[in-house]
Amino acid sequence: MRASPRRATLATVAASAGVSVATVSKVLNGRSDVAPATRSLVQSLLQQHDYVAPSPRRAEVGALATVEVQFDTDFNAYSTEIIQGAVEAGAEVEVGVVVSIRKGADRTAAWARDLVAAGRRALIAVTSELTSGQLAALSRAHLPLVVIDPLNLPRARVTSVGSTNFAGGLAATQHLLSLGHRRIAYIGGPATAACNQARLHGYRAAMEAEGVPVLPDHVRTGHFRYHDGVEGGAALLDLPQAPTAIFAGSDETALGVIEAARARGLRIPEDLSVAGFDDTQIARMASPPLTTVRQPLREMGRVALRTALRLAAGEQIDSHHVELATELVVRGSTAPASRDTRPGAGRPGR
Amino acid sequence: MRASPRRATLATVAASAGVSVATVSKVLNGRSDVAPATRSLVQSLLQQHDYVAPSPRRAEVGALATVEVQFDTDFNAYSTEIIQGAVEAGAEVEVGVVVSIRKGADRTAAWARDLVAAGRRALIAVTSELTSGQLAALSRAHLPLVVIDPLNLPRARVTSVGSTNFAGGLAATQHLLSLGHRRIAYIGGPATAACNQARLHGYRAAMEAEGVPVLPDHVRTGHFRYHDGVEGGAALLDLPQAPTAIFAGSDETALGVIEAARARGLRIPEDLSVAGFDDTQIARMASPPLTTVRQPLREMGRVALRTALRLAAGEQIDSHHVELATELVVRGSTAPASRDTRPGAGRPGR
Repeated sequence: MRASPRRATLATVAASAGVSVATVSKVLNGRSDVAPATRSLVQSLLQQHDYVAPSPRRAEVGALATVEVQFDTDFNAYSTEIIQGAVEAGAEVEVGVVVSIRKGADRTAAWARDLVAAGRRALIAVTSELTSGQLAALSRAHLPLVVIDPLNLPRARVTSVGSTNFAGGLAATQHLLSLGHRRIAYIGGPATAACNQARLHGYRAAMEAEGVPVLPDHVRTGHFRYHDGVEGGAALLDLPQAPTAIFAGSDETALGVIEAARARGLRIPEDLSVAGFDDTQIARMASPPLTTVRQPLREMGRVALRTALRLAAGEQIDSHHVELATELVVRGSTAPASRDTRPGAGRPGR
Repeated sequence: MRASPRRATLATVAASAGVSVATVSKVLNGRSDVAPATRSLVQSLLQQHDYVAPSPRRAEVGALATVEVQFDTDFNAYSTEIIQGAVEAGAEVEVGVVVSIRKGADRTAAWARDLVAAGRRALIAVTSELTSGQLAALSRAHLPLVVIDPLNLPRARVTSVGSTNFAGGLAATQHLLSLGHRRIAYIGGPATAACNQARLHGYRAAMEAEGVPVLPDHVRTGHFRYHDGVEGGAALLDLPQAPTAIFAGSDETALGVIEAARARGLRIPEDLSVAGFDDTQIARMASPPLTTVRQPLREMGRVALRTALRLAAGEQIDSHHVELATELVVRGSTAPASRDTRPGAGRPGR
């Protein structure tokens, strides 16, 4: 990086571009209501000026400030990535990240007050379903909230960070279709979970676009857990019209499917292709390594922490819901469909 | 649980047993200098009285109190379990657990002072190598320290929590020997790491007790990581005298070995038995599920947090190093050695 005598401000960039500060801010926040030419000019100027967005500093947030990242289940490979991102972003501004587990029913009005009394500047709730009563309690306690991957579609204006679940479901299914698979099954999470609905609809959209029917018993719900893959995978593989590929709504579930296949003497990917969702550490350690849809979980943790601190500092947030891009990561668990796709054909041990 | 009008104190139990409070305390702390009959009497009285050890309460530690659990590498399946235990124990006494990552060189004198300024009541360092300078900085800052699974054998009186690594290495190797394996290899962590040395010596002791030679190229070091298993497993399986069983010093490394075997067309456990160490979530999700030595990582996190709070409250700790018991968990990745153990015999794809 080249040295610059003074850090560029939004005003500097706006003046160079001949636009308003508000327009520069819109570009920074990825808003769509900026003309493409203006956007491109502003972006190149931001780069030229080495613009660095100001972050809340320690003095502003207070030496004792902590942000709490709260989960509603035991920690797992998914939470590990979220925590990693939040801790990295917290370290940059010297804000401690407290991690905790709190089941839904334990989130009373006292819960919100206790968090404030304990010095929390903001709360980040992960994959949680928050009731309107809980939201009201946080609001009364003046505790800013950011939700990562909300389970419900909140009616209130809750600030949230997610990923492009629909696009991810689409990409995974298109990948399997491009390998020649036609009997592709989906094992997802709770039917009511927003992220599951988006992944399922991405899967359906890809199948529909290719004119491939989705068999009714080829779509299963679960809780994104390992045993959902073991049980769901077993049920699917024992069907007369067993799938040749299974798209699992999480890496854990995909690993369960791999185990269900192994227990039946099926080889991955020769006899069955398996794709997951998340790209946590377990995906890289699966055998074979798992083809999966990468959610930028660390980045989601980072963005959530920064957004939470902005809210705590009383700043305005342009967009109350941000979706970070997913990306298909192709590894060894998917392969071209074998030519013979008759039920049970070409499979040892059936 | 039956209701009791008053909580039993050490004094009540001591009076009932006709011994001193110090003796009851010794029994509670698992000290060996108590006569067996006395120990057994005190233990049954403790149970009869529903004795619950007093914990530091919120009022004592202060509403803003936090304990920091610091790692020196990115979070993984191992840290997930430690954090889970610490968070559970913290929740019981309403103490927040801050998690962080700090590399060794960044632990300056200011680091210790900053932790105190940020309201930390104690520091729990995980798998860290602490220099005498760093220990002195913590001491000057009056910040109590508990180390989990210390990498070095500290000369100073550092309070630490570990597990019975030697017994664990012994148990895993005895299990493989009992299945008829003779060519058993070990892929461990850093040669200087105390926990690795203990596991390696457990392995050597079991082999020696059976009169089975340890081939020099059958012992490998690493960093307990996945790729150590992929690379070390590949190197071992390509030896003229390839092992029929591999004991890995961590679950991650064991998963790497499974992948190295799969890439060579070897089946687990028919062609190669693999055992790990840790019993993190990835062990249960491996395919086949991994036989491994369970470290009570959650319990280690819980004990470390409680011990840290006792130190912060100025209490005396009887034992400065506690080792919790490991336990062999037999799953699907180990099986009897095939009868033909000539190099390469009975293996497809060699």
